[in-house]
Parts: sequence; C-alpha cells; structure tokens
Amino acid sequence: MTQTQAAAPTQTILLDSLTARTARALEAADDHLRAARVALAARVAPDGRAYGTALNAHQSALHGLSWLATTVEALRQLQGWAARLEADGRFGEAEALILQIGFGEYLNQIAGGIPMSQGELTRPADIGIAAPDASDLRLADLLRHGNSDAARQRLVTLLQAQGPAPSFGATGLDEEYDMIRDQFRRFADEKVEPFAQSWHQENAYIPMDLIAEMGEMGVFGLTIPEEYGGFGMSKTAMCVVSEELSRGYIGVGSLGTRSEIAAELILGGGTEAQKQDWLPRIASAETLPTAVFTEPNTGSDLGSLRTRATIEGDSYRVTGNKTWITHAARTDLMTLLVRTDPDTSNYSGLSMLLAEKPRGDDSLPFPADGMTGGEIEVLGYRGMKEYELAFDGFTVPRANLLGGVEGQGFKQLMQTFESARIQTAARAIGVAQNAFELGLRYATERVQFGTPLATFPRIYGKLAMMAVEIMITRQLTYHSAREKDAGRRCDLEAGMAKLLGARVAWACADNSLQIHGGNGFALEYPISRVLCDARILNIFEGAAEIQAQVIARRLLETGRN
Amino acid sequence: MTQTQAAAPTQTILLDSLTARTARALEAADDHLRAARVALAARVAPDGRAYGTALNAHQSALHGLSWLATTVEALRQLQGWAARLEADGRFGEAEALILQIGFGEYLNQIAGGIPMSQGELTRPADIGIAAPDASDLRLADLLRHGNSDAARQRLVTLLQAQGPAPSFGATGLDEEYDMIRDQFRRFADEKVEPFAQSWHQENAYIPMDLIAEMGEMGVFGLTIPEEYGGFGMSKTAMCVVSEELSRGYIGVGSLGTRSEIAAELILGGGTEAQKQDWLPRIASAETLPTAVFTEPNTGSDLGSLRTRATIEGDSYRVTGNKTWITHAARTDLMTLLVRTDPDTSNYSGLSMLLAEKPRGDDSLPFPADGMTGGEIEVLGYRGMKEYELAFDGFTVPRANLLGGVEGQGFKQLMQTFESARIQTAARAIGVAQNAFELGLRYATERVQFGTPLATFPRIYGKLAMMAVEIMITRQLTYHSAREKDAGRRCDLEAGMAKLLGARVAWACADNSLQIHGGNGFALEYPISRVLCDARILNIFEGAAEIQAQVIARRLLETGRN
Ligand SMILES: Cc1cc2nc3c(=O)[nH]c(=O)nc-3n(C[C@H](O)[C@H](O)[C@H](O)COP(=O)(O)OP(=O)(O)OC[C@H]3O[C@@H](n4cnc5c(N)ncnc54)[C@H](O)[C@@H]3O)c2cc1C
Ligand SMILES: Cc1cc2nc3c(=O)[nH]c(=O)nc-3n(C[C@H](O)[C@H](O)[C@H](O)COP(=O)(O)OP(=O)(O)OC[C@H]3O[C@@H](n4cnc5c(N)ncnc54)[C@H](O)[C@@H]3O)c2cc1C
Ligand SMILES: CC(C)(COP(=O)(O)OP(=O)(O)OC[C@H]1O[C@@H](n2cnc3c(N)ncnc32)[C@H](O)[C@@H]1OP(=O)(O)O)[C@@H](O)C(=O)NCCC(=O)NCCS
Ligand SMILES: CC(C)(COP(=O)(O)OP(=O)(O)OC[C@H]1O[C@@H](n2cnc3c(N)ncnc32)[C@H](O)[C@@H]1OP(=O)(O)O)[C@@H](O)C(=O)NCCC(=O)NCCS
Repeated sequence: MTQTQAAAPTQTILLDSLTARTARALEAADDHLRAARVALAARVAPDGRAYGTALNAHQSALHGLSWLATTVEALRQLQGWAARLEADGRFGEAEALILQIGFGEYLNQIAGGIPMSQGELTRPADIGIAAPDASDLRLADLLRHGNSDAARQRLVTLLQAQGPAPSFGATGLDEEYDMIRDQFRRFADEKVEPFAQSWHQENAYIPMDLIAEMGEMGVFGLTIPEEYGGFGMSKTAMCVVSEELSRGYIGVGSLGTRSEIAAELILGGGTEAQKQDWLPRIASAETLPTAVFTEPNTGSDLGSLRTRATIEGDSYRVTGNKTWITHAARTDLMTLLVRTDPDTSNYSGLSMLLAEKPRGDDSLPFPADGMTGGEIEVLGYRGMKEYELAFDGFTVPRANLLGGVEGQGFKQLMQTFESARIQTAARAIGVAQNAFELGLRYATERVQFGTPLATFPRIYGKLAMMAVEIMITRQLTYHSAREKDAGRRCDLEAGMAKLLGARVAWACADNSLQIHGGNGFALEYPISRVLCDARILNIFEGAAEIQAQVIARRLLETGRN
Repeated sequence: MTQTQAAAPTQTILLDSLTARTARALEAADDHLRAARVALAARVAPDGRAYGTALNAHQSALHGLSWLATTVEALRQLQGWAARLEADGRFGEAEALILQIGFGEYLNQIAGGIPMSQGELTRPADIGIAAPDASDLRLADLLRHGNSDAARQRLVTLLQAQGPAPSFGATGLDEEYDMIRDQFRRFADEKVEPFAQSWHQENAYIPMDLIAEMGEMGVFGLTIPEEYGGFGMSKTAMCVVSEELSRGYIGVGSLGTRSEIAAELILGGGTEAQKQDWLPRIASAETLPTAVFTEPNTGSDLGSLRTRATIEGDSYRVTGNKTWITHAARTDLMTLLVRTDPDTSNYSGLSMLLAEKPRGDDSLPFPADGMTGGEIEVLGYRGMKEYELAFDGFTVPRANLLGGVEGQGFKQLMQTFESARIQTAARAIGVAQNAFELGLRYATERVQFGTPLATFPRIYGKLAMMAVEIMITRQLTYHSAREKDAGRRCDLEAGMAKLLGARVAWACADNSLQIHGGNGFALEYPISRVLCDARILNIFEGAAEIQAQVIARRLLETGRN
C-alpha cells in the first residue's frame, strides 16, 4: 500500500448553507444556556437575586454558567458578524472558515468542557444539566466537521497569502473604522513596535514625546464629547485604536485606559464645572491621569477599602496605603477612591476624589507633601511603571470631590469599569493579534524536517485557532462597545469580553511562543515579552474569577432572559 | 427562603468501593484506547509501520492518540499506586480523593477533550472514533461524581491540615526513597530555595561551592554503578532527587541532567577505557559535562545536523555552529554530536565525541582554541546560562569518539534521551510542586471578602487539581523510571512522562500565579519566576509536539497492544 492511499479521503472543507446551519446551532446553544440558567436560578437565586453565601457555595456551577453564557454570546456575535458580511456580499472563504471553525470548536467546548483556565474545564454536569444532545440535527454536523484539520489548514493557507493585513478576515465594521485602524496600525508599526522590546528590557518609560504625539492624534479624547474638547467618537473607535496600539505594545495601548477611566468618571459623575475643567485637558493629554483604587489588603474586594479622607476646613486629608498604581509617578491627576464615611466598612461610604499631584520622574517620583511611593518591579506590562503609595495627610480640595456628593464613589467607578473592561478586552485583542502575527511569520520562515513549520498540522492548527478566537473576541468586544454607546448598563457584556479576551490573549501568546521553539525563550525574541505582557490581562481590571462572579450575578437577576 | 435552604443537598464525597470502580473504569478507558489505536493503525500504518508522509498528514489524529494513550497510562499508574497503598493499609482519605478526582477529571477529558495545549483540545472525533459511552456502568458514576466540588474542597482541607509535607499524599515508594527525599528536601529548603530568586533576578551562576556540595551528596553519581565510582541507585532515586532539587530551583535540579546524559552515553555506548576514565570524575563532580547537540537550523530534527568533524591525524577537527547549549562555559566535557560522514544528511552519519574543554567564566567564557561563544539571555531556567557556540577547527582526539565506532551517535543519544526525559519529567514535578506549595500558602494566608482565598471554590478547585495532577505525573514518571531500570526501551513511557509533566507544571505555575492576583506579577514574588521557569519544560528535551510524535510512532508499531 502506498503512502497516498493511506491518506484520509478528501474532505469537503466548508459545510453547505453554512450561515443557516450556524444560525440553527446558535438556537440549540441558546436552548442549552436557558436550561442551565433556569436550573441554577432555581437553586441559587429562587427569589430572583443571588446572595453572597449562596453565590460562594455554588461558585463552581455559577462560574461554569458564566463561561457557558460567554461562549454562547461569543457565538451569537460571530453569527451576527457573518450575517452582516453575507448581506453585504463580503463573506469570503476565510470568513466562512472562521465562522465554521469557531462554531465547531465552541460547540464542542459547550458539550465537553470549556477551559476556564489551564486545569479548570467546566462541563454541563458541573452546572447540573445534561450535555446538549450530539445527535440534535442542529448541531451534529458542526460538532463533527466544523473544526476539522482540513479547515484549519485551509484557513492558514489563506491567511498566509494575505500577508500582514490589518485584520485577518473582514472585521465587519464600517469603513471609517478601517481608516482609523489603518492610521493607528501604521503608527504602531513605525513608532511603537520597533522600540517595545527595548522599553521592556530596560524597564524604561514610554517616551513623553510619543505620548504627546498620541495626544495630537486624539487618542486620549477619542470618546470625550466635542463640547469638552474631544472627538465624540464611539466606544467602538476606542476599541479599534486600543487594539492597534496594544498590538504594537501593551504599554502604549494602556496609556489610554487611565484617561478613559478619568474621563468616564467625570462625564458620568462629575459636576458641570468639573467637566469643563478637566475633560479638555485630559483629551489633549495636557493632564495625564492615574487610577488609584487598589490597596494592599483590598484588591478584588474593592468595596472594603480603608484609605480615609477626612474633612479639615476646605480640604480632605487623605491617609492610607494604595498599591499597584500604574503610571503613578509621571501623572498629574489621581482618580482616588477613598472612604469618606468612617462608620461604614462596605462600598456605601466610598467617594472619588479628583486629586491633583505634581508630575514626578525616576529621580523624584513623588514631589508632593503627604505622599510617598516605591516602584514595584513587574514581569511584563512595563512602560508606565507600577507603584505602591502611602498617603499621610495628603491634601485634596473639597471642590475636587467627584460630583460634589459623598458616598457615590463606588457606583461611579463600577459604571466606569464597564468602559475600562471594554478597553481592556480591546487591549487583549491587540496582544493576541501581535502573538498571532509573530507566530505566523515564524512558522512560515522556519524550516524543520525539510519543510516550513506552518505545514505541520499541530502548527497550522495552533495558528488557525488563534485567528478564529481573535475574531470571536473582537466581535464580542464590539458588541459590548455598542451596548455602552447605547447607554445601557453593560457590566455583563463588558465582563464577558474582558473574560474571554484575557483567556484568548494568554492562549495565543503561549501557543505562539511554542511555535518559536527554543527561540521563544530568548529575551531577544519579542514573543518572550508578549507572553509576559499577556499574563496581566487575567489579573487586572477585575481578575478572571471576579468577572465570572459579576457575570453570574447579572445572569441570575430576574427579568433577564 | 433562607440561604441555607438554597444550598445543594449534602453530597457523599467519596464513592464507595472506590478502587474497584476505578479498576473497572480503567478497563473501559483501555477499551477506548484500543479502539483508537486500531482505527488509526489501519489508516496510517497498515503494514505495521508509520511513514513520514502519513505521519504528518494524520498528525492531528495521531497526536490525539498520543495524548489519549498518555492519559490512560497515567490513570493506570495512578490505579497501581492506589492498589499498592491499599494493600499496605496506607490508602488514606487524601489518597482516595486524589484517585477519585484524578479519574473523574481524566475520564471526562477522554470523553470530551484532552488539552494538548491552551487552545488545542483533542476529542474522540479528531481521532475518528466515538466517545466512550457515558452510560457505560463502568464509567458513569466516576464521570459524574468523581471530580466534584465537594471532593476538591475536602482534599484541600486535608492538605492544609498536613502543613508543608514532603509530598501531598503518600508517594507509594519504599521507605529508602522517603529518606532520600527528606534529605534533599531539607537541602533544597536551606541552601537552594532562599537564593533562587536572586540567582534568577541577577542572572547569576549557581555558586560552585553548592555544586561541590551536591557532588559530595552524590547527586551526580547517583545512578552510576559503584564500580565506576557511583552509587548504583535506581532511576527512581534520580527522580526523587531531581524533584526535590527542582522544587528548590529548576536550575539546581537541572545540573544533574547533563551528568545524567554524559554518564548514560558513556555507560551505554562507551568503551571500557572511556568508562574507567570518565565515570568516576563525573560522579564526583570533578568533571562537569555539557550537552552539545542543537544547531541554529536543527532543533527538533536533530538527525539532520551539520556540524562536521573530519579526521586529521590523530584528531577530529570540528567545524560548525551549535546553539542553546546550557552551562557551556563553566564545564569541562562536551558530549558533542557531529557529522563524521559528510556523504550523509540524516542520522546515520552522526557520531558522539567526548570533547574536553577548559572551564570558562563570565570574563572569559571559552578559553579554548577553535571555539567561541556568546550568551543567550533567557526568560527563565537561569543559573547555568545558555550559549551559542562556533567551532572552527576545534580539536578532539580520535580516542574520544564514543565507543570507538563512527555513525552510532544518534542512536546512542536516543537511548540516552530516555533517561534525560525521565529526569526532565521529575524536574517538572518539582517545579509543579513548588508552584502548588506557593499557591496553597498564599491562598491560606490572603484574605479577601472577609475570608481566606482558599475557601472560595475557584481557588480550592485550582489547588486540588494541582495536587491531583502532580500525583498522577509522579506515578507516571516513576513507572517510566522502573521501565528504564528494567533495561527496556522506554522512549514511549519516558515521552509520556515528559509530555504530561510539562503540561502539568505549566498549568500549576499559571494557576498558582493567578491565585496570587496582582502580587503574582511582581518580580519579588517567587511565583513570577516559577512561571518563567515552568515554560521551558514544553520546549527542551524534545518539544511537546515531538514527544507526541515519538509516542504515536511507537504506539502504531506492530506487536504492541
Ligand atoms: C500590573 C498591574 C497593574 C495594576 N494597575 C492598577 C491601577 O492602575 N490602579 C489600581 O487601582 N489597581 C491596579 N492594579 C490592581 C489590580 O486591579 C488588582 O491586582 C486586581 O483587582 C486583583 O486584586 P488583588 O491583586 O488584590 O488580588 P486578590 O483580590 O487578592 O485575588 C487573588 C486571587 O483570588 C481570586 N479571588 C478573589 N476573590 C475571589 C472570590 N470571591 N472567589 C473566587 N476567587 C476570588 C482572584 O480572582 C485572584 O485570582 C494593577 C495590578 C497589576 C498587577
Ligand atoms: C533554555 C534552553 C536550554 C536548552 N539546552 C540545550 C542543551 O543544553 N543542549 C542542546 O543541545 N540543546 C538545548 N536546547 C535546545 C532544545 O533542545 C531545542 O530548543 C528543542 O529541541 C527544540 O528545537 P528548536 O528550538 O530548534 O525548535 P524547532 O525544532 O524549530 O521547533 C519549533 C516548534 O515547532 C514544532 N515542531 C517541530 N517539528 C514539528 C513537526 N514535525 N510537527 C509538529 N510540530 C513540530 C516544535 O515542537 C516547536 O513547537 C535548549 C533550549 C532551550 C530553550
Ligand atoms: C467584586 C465587585 C464586582 C463588587 O462586588 P460587591 O462589593 O459585592 O458590590 P456589588 O456588586 O454588590 O455592587 C455594589 C453596588 O454597586 C452597584 N453596581 C455594581 N456594578 C454596577 C454597574 N456596572 N453599574 C451600576 N451600578 C453598579 C450594584 O448594583 C450595587 O448597588 P445596590 O447595592 O444599590 O444594588 C467589585 O469590587 C470589583 O469589580 N472588583 C474588582 C476590582 C477591580 O476591577 N479593580 C481594578 C482596578 S484597576
Ligand atoms: C524527532 C526525533 C525523535 C527523531 O526522529 P527521526 O529523525 O525521524 O529518527 P527516528 O525516530 O527514525 O530514529 C532513527 C533511528 O534511531 C532509532 N531510535 C530512536 N529512538 C530510539 C531509542 N529510544 N532507543 C533505541 N533506538 C532508537 C530508531 O529506531 C531508528 O533506527 P532504525 O532506522 O534503525 O529503525 C529526534 O530527532 C528527537 O528526539 N528530536 C528532539 C531533539 C531533542 O530532544 N533535543 C534535546 C537536546 S537537549
């Protein structure tokens, strides 16, 4: 028998009537999700609201539900993307393969185990329900043939032929976004990517003139209304910009996070005077903000923080310790979450201060009275530096209380976190895309056993899955951005985008490093840094377990379906 | 309705007749594996041997088979361990929980997806077979209740009560091994662990006097026969020592790898004179060896390497480039794989030289004629330093040809790799154990939302899975060590241990870092280093994809069942 005969029979790669099939599969996935939610709601939130104790006791099941819902929502957004492209006549072969592989893989995960982390797979039995029926005609073909080896191979061949493109597969956004993307992609390619490795290795600050240039390009005022000196653009635009900058370097893509948080806080909770005062300066990058929330004993449980602010005359005097404050030294404005009501120990006694401080540098990081700090050296996510801070009677004028009313700080921040998490999901996409592009290039160039690595099934398989998951996360993130733009509470949607984005970025970095073999472990190769950078995404802006908790709680609320 | 009522009904945590159940489940898993092997053998190796083209065309399916076989073999070894403990009356509650959770989880993976890497799950359909029947009475209860939340919680409670112990759950080895473990555990706790972080951060060499002390303790002559100055101990002893040293620091646990490779090469392939000459010096650490195989263009495909050795009078003159050579500068003896037959391009023309060189240091790394080198800076796995080397007419006496006959180098090395991979699996266990202990301690001490992290299901769930997978890998590794001691070819078994060990170490490091939250990202916390160290295990000593390839090929050979 010859070797050719031993090969598998030729497979049809693309299933026929693909989008109709995926539409039906989505219905089946929705049925499954509904069953899961009903089962858990009955157990955990019988009166339509989940309490702390029950939430913790059933955490395994609930987080399983969160991941299931995230996976189904991701498929829904992928389906929506495909349908829009199809209607526009822009649904090409690569897009079809992404759709098919994405459904094939995620439906199988729903049935057999969704990875919440390495070592933590959540399965239907963990939620207390049966697996979807594999013989359900809406699912069977996609389950079996959706994510096939042949489909993965074909997708990578198509992507290789495209060369380095702004996105692999049409993003499905309007043309104006493609123009923004192109602009920032070029900027990142020219002014960010070539320097990222040395900024990282030298633990250096991102240069101030680059920040100024970004300011001129509008990065920091993108979503601020025009009346306050911004561009009044959508959160989707923010996503596109954050993706491309983070693709160049996560540090650069993260500069905007702090401006986004400060601007959102002020827009959502500030007085008109505060808006007039601060927003134009934030938009122009004249004022660089830093976000000061976390404390040594209070990370995830932010509501219990202890830094006190007490009134003395016209000022608050702030005393306490903060930690993990990104870009603390070289910034001008702290959005500083403090306890103004000493008789509380939960979120109700917290207030947000817009606390000015003089800019510091490496030689004198905190040239302010009542404030000291020390650098925390980190694995990745460098370029802005991390600090722990100690406040001892640091003074903030009373007029700088956000919104002028105490006790609103936590809810103001929670609404703001929605935007921050959307932006963080976009950062994750950028990091993932960077990892993917590095891996694709390496696998195309490196030859082993007489052939480029990309010709081996385990290598194109990794690459295909990266491309597919990046597109899925992208669509989920744009969805959450649209929700935010529509003015709806979207901690659910933003949490899902952040949760999935962080997993995808980490998996992409990990697999791209693997494709690099030994060279992936050399500091000289960018992928070794991208791995370190990617690791932060699961921790900050609400760790993965906290996102899952937020999502579960929202899912169980009465009235949602 | 009160919160207590909302909680789940009390579960029986341990299934009755557990070891009898797991024995039956193992039969079912074996049936499934057999079906997979038969199906694939028919497709890929119809005449009992798999060829290159077919191997590559079916790589996805074949690697799925390798992972399936590894998973089943891991369960078999876990079962053997449990049965031995039970027979000895040492099968306690923690051990029973490990067995039950291990079967529960791995059986579910077999049915629904085994993670080959993040983003690569292999499922029965990928191999071309049906999933095991979930209603099979041998499997049903373990699938549903084996890896329950309650079991994970109980296991972690028991492990917390044990405090820092040499191993979590009885290892199942004889007492002499426990004594060895204790000795090296103390050594690592006192002389390694406290310094590891600074060695890493300063990219410093592991101090020479520590290596000398290890030499006195017998680390480098452990498995060398007594007649050649060693201790004549088993490979299992090597595993135990490697585990404990690597738990302290992977660099320290890896010093022995090079001695193991050199000693195995000489024992297996050397002339009597070479044995007499080298083995006692290797055993005493008077001679420190380094392994010189990889080249810039030849990593996984070692058989195609190009560094030439040509005879001139009584010497070989070596010319070519090597890379990724660990501990190249500070060592005395290179096991140097070269091409002696210039008319070949595959493994058949390779020979192994025992090439002496003077010891170098940071100021003058290679004080030898015909040899230069430069350091490769790396993410983790520091302490010995990595080098790229260039040979230009470097001289090696003809008498230093291993075994005195040319063309044997590759097969000599492949046999040696069996030991090296067993030792590497043991290093992985040590790294995983370190990650686990750091995570357990942190989760016990860190309070959030008013309670230690370890009380949250997602946290004890991660910890339980670490403990379970570490024990599984341990048993699989000891099994491969016993095979080697019995003198059987065991690239299959060693490959499985290395493959699983690397995945487990990486998952443990990743999840332990996650438990540390933001602090896990701080260079000051050891877990940030352990993550970097763990990442190498999937790359060197045969990358994960190469192990899977080796395993698949062996599985398909006729005559194995
Ligand atoms: C590089 C970096 C930059 C940062 N930048 C900023 C910044 O600019 N400003 C700022 O204010 N903060 C910042 N942070 C802090 C960040 O938001 C916190 O690290 C994060 O919120 C987690 O808090 P923690 O580190 O205290 O972890 P912990 O809250 O101690 O959590 C540790 C682990 O336990 C898990 N866990 C906690 N509670 C539960 C539960 N109930 N159930 C299950 N699991 C649980 C967490 O998910 C996590 O895995 C930064 C952190 C880092 C590392
Ligand atoms: C820190 C470190 C220390 C090392 N120490 C030593 C040492 O002391 N001595 C020494 O000789 N070497 C050493 N090595 C080299 C190491 O053995 C190689 O890196 C390893 O064998 C992989 O080779 P490569 O790096 O060339 O990757 P490549 O062979 O280029 O492989 C790149 C990727 O492609 C995959 N791949 C390759 N072929 C296939 C295929 N057919 N199918 C599917 N996937 C495939 C690989 O699995 C890998 O993921 C070390 C490496 C490192 C990073
Ligand atoms: C854990 C966490 C989600 C809050 O949990 P909690 O303390 O149980 O607080 P709750 O969710 O009950 O919220 C408190 C209040 O805020 C409200 N709230 C929460 N999210 C909201 C949102 N997105 N929009 C509007 N209101 C919101 C709640 O409805 C609740 O109000 P109520 O009591 O009037 O109903 C929050 O502490 C958190 O996000 N932690 C992570 C910290 C983080 O991301 N840090 C990053 C720093 S860069
Ligand atoms: C990929 C790899 C497994 C070899 O693949 P290959 O070139 O196809 O070689 P083969 O597997 O066909 O082996 C060649 C010969 O060695 C023999 N051989 C292989 N492994 C053996 C073993 N463990 N014991 C005895 N003989 C062995 C084979 O039987 C074959 O002999 P034959 O042709 O007479 O039948 C090998 O190159 C490898 O391990 N690469 C990874 C490199 C590595 O680990 N580097 C670490 C450096 S620190």
